[in-house]
Amino acid sequence: MELYINFEIPHELEEELSRRFKVVKGGDLSNVEAALVSRLTPEELAKMPRLRFIQVVTAGLDHLPWEHIPPHVVVAGNSGSNADAVAEFALAMLLAAFKKVFYYNEKMRRGDYKKDVSVPVLSGKKVAVLGLGEIGTRVARILAALGAEVWGFSRTPREGPWRFTHRLEDALRDAYAAVCALPLTKHTRGLVKYEHLALMREDAVFVNVGRAEVVDREGALRIVKERPRFIFASDVWWGRHDFSKDAEFFSLPNVIATPWVAGGYGSEEVWRKMVEEAVKNLLVWASGGTPKNIAKRQDYI
Amino acid sequence: MELYINFEIPHELEEELSRRFKVVKGGDLSNVEAALVSRLTPEELAKMPRLRFIQVVTAGLDHLPWEHIPPHVVVAGNSGSNADAVAEFALAMLLAAFKKVFYYNEKMRRGDYKKDVSVPVLSGKKVAVLGLGEIGTRVARILAALGAEVWGFSRTPREGPWRFTHRLEDALRDAYAAVCALPLTKHTRGLVKYEHLALMREDAVFVNVGRAEVVDREGALRIVKERPRFIFASDVWWGRHDFSKDAEFFSLPNVIATPWVAGGYGSEEVWRKMVEEAVKNLLVWASGGTPKNIAKRQDYI
Repeated sequence: MELYINFEIPHELEEELSRRFKVVKGGDLSNVEAALVSRLTPEELAKMPRLRFIQVVTAGLDHLPWEHIPPHVVVAGNSGSNADAVAEFALAMLLAAFKKVFYYNEKMRRGDYKKDVSVPVLSGKKVAVLGLGEIGTRVARILAALGAEVWGFSRTPREGPWRFTHRLEDALRDAYAAVCALPLTKHTRGLVKYEHLALMREDAVFVNVGRAEVVDREGALRIVKERPRFIFASDVWWGRHDFSKDAEFFSLPNVIATPWVAGGYGSEEVWRKMVEEAVKNLLVWASGGTPKNIAKRQDYI
Repeated sequence: MELYINFEIPHELEEELSRRFKVVKGGDLSNVEAALVSRLTPEELAKMPRLRFIQVVTAGLDHLPWEHIPPHVVVAGNSGSNADAVAEFALAMLLAAFKKVFYYNEKMRRGDYKKDVSVPVLSGKKVAVLGLGEIGTRVARILAALGAEVWGFSRTPREGPWRFTHRLEDALRDAYAAVCALPLTKHTRGLVKYEHLALMREDAVFVNVGRAEVVDREGALRIVKERPRFIFASDVWWGRHDFSKDAEFFSLPNVIATPWVAGGYGSEEVWRKMVEEAVKNLLVWASGGTPKNIAKRQDYI
């Protein structure tokens, strides 16, 4: 069976795949039945009429050209493979913003040693976790272990040390902090609007490690401009890999920004693990098993 | 029985104490048998010949004039009362430094969007926790829940989700990160030297939320100057409340500094809780019970 790979993978993983597949990297793709990809273009898809299975390396699947993927093709994502890394990153942003570490560190550098802002305690405070997937549940468990009153928001109810809600408003109302780890689907695009952010406390911290487009850009900009004590911390930006498009945010003192480094794009160690997991999942499919993370087409189109 | 109080306490707590004690705040202290204090001077001690019990509001007791406290006077500290707050702060510093959030946030502000430093994963990595008291054990449990390989260092063995060691060298060797939450006693003063820090990885993160003096100042300065990828993050400084004495550290890019705000000095909410706990402990003593956190005199002189 022919397997199409369109990105660099470590030599030993390619060797492992070669035992099961004939690996092709370009040229004639007419006999390709499976694809291992990070991104995929409509042009590549058009060359693979016999394609039956797509294994994506990334956790998110929002970047696929869904309109061009025939309905019979099975698409498997890779959530979980970067979840430890991204959950750690979300907690890092949340805690450092909430505990005013960015604020005081910047002051200390300037030689301003005044303690003019009180450092709150997270334990006992309401914190919302939006999205209870691999990342969200990890974040929620640690926040619960820290003593926070965790509210979990998701479409599908999941049990854990949190109070579950279907209603975004209930999760965010009077919350001291929130972490957004929702996938980007047709259901979540633009979901978090100004009105939702405005339900949080004046001095709340909102962290996004999912996809920028889940949050309404103008709503986020309005809240950080209106509320100087509100902190918007995000690793993901609407300009995607062109961060200059969102430079308006980065100069604001109440914005904490990183350039999409929480997961595989920021770490060879994480990327390596993601490729390993994707290869494993692809081999499950190849041996007739049921792969993990099969995408629901109707979430995207 | 007369009780001496030398700092501002909330009205309702003073009222509670007034039911049990005659509260005095100055003047003639010759009949004082108990004291509720934040700091204490030799002069104040000299005025209280009948003193039997000192309840301190702070968790650390290193600032007391131990030479002037008669051996028969019982001294109770207040560890635990600020432990949630300080543990949160330690984790905030550790995670944000380890995940390069400070680094990338500063770059984004300058319009530099290059991903030039890899973000490591904490899960699976060796992390040392120095001091397994109220703060250290909280930090260690969360790090273990994050999947880190936690090494716990303390004089007294304590069981938990960590590998215990009496040897500082073993805790720090090849560690990716360390959190110091040791109390300052005659045993720990200057304990962590250059040689110990140098055992850690080149790009390790060392966090101090205990007392500055546990770490050798020149050793810390040498390591951050020699190793540009080493990060020294601290809330406590050798100059104590005069931070300008340590300004040499604050201008270095691999130093994260905050002005002693992790506990009661940085938060009214935490200070209030500390005073409440101290009052509770004092009332246990007054009613003939055994108060918590009784200090061992031989740890200080």
